[in-house]
Amino acid sequence: MSWHAKVYVVLKPSVMDPQGSTVQRALHQMGYSAIENLRIGKFIEVNFDQALQEQEVHKQLNEICDKLLANPNIETYQFQIERV
Amino acid sequence: MSWHAKVYVVLKPSVMDPQGSTVQRALHQMGYSAIENLRIGKFIEVNFDQALQEQEVHKQLNEICDKLLANPNIETYQFQIERV
Repeated sequence: MSWHAKVYVVLKPSVMDPQGSTVQRALHQMGYSAIENLRIGKFIEVNFDQALQEQEVHKQLNEICDKLLANPNIETYQFQIERV
Repeated sequence: MSWHAKVYVVLKPSVMDPQGSTVQRALHQMGYSAIENLRIGKFIEVNFDQALQEQEVHKQLNEICDKLLANPNIETYQFQIERV
């Protein structure tokens, strides 16, 4: 048993996503014309020691997102925690 | 209204993740010693024209993941579709 967290880091809606635009254009050229928008973010899976309390896992996740995983100027994040 | 798909692309468990290992090491050095494992994948949001049937959205997502978004040699993917 341990804590398993899924972290989603995405660009803020107001921030351009050139990587996503490039992929979207490539898909249009491949014939997938029904794609109206495509944005690329990060999906980070983090396992924590089971000895931690859920509240402490939550606190540490907020900290590591703010300090390292996300750039608060241009990105937002969300996470889910579960026991596995 | 349109179709909104969330696509998760992750490395297969047997594939090394040097980027994830580096981040995990950095977090340990920052004092987060309870982190047992960390892996980094992609989170891709795709909007499709609402005129498509759900079955067709499903089919196109499988195709674009196989052809472009994921590398089937080393990655797996999952997706969820919803009307927004």
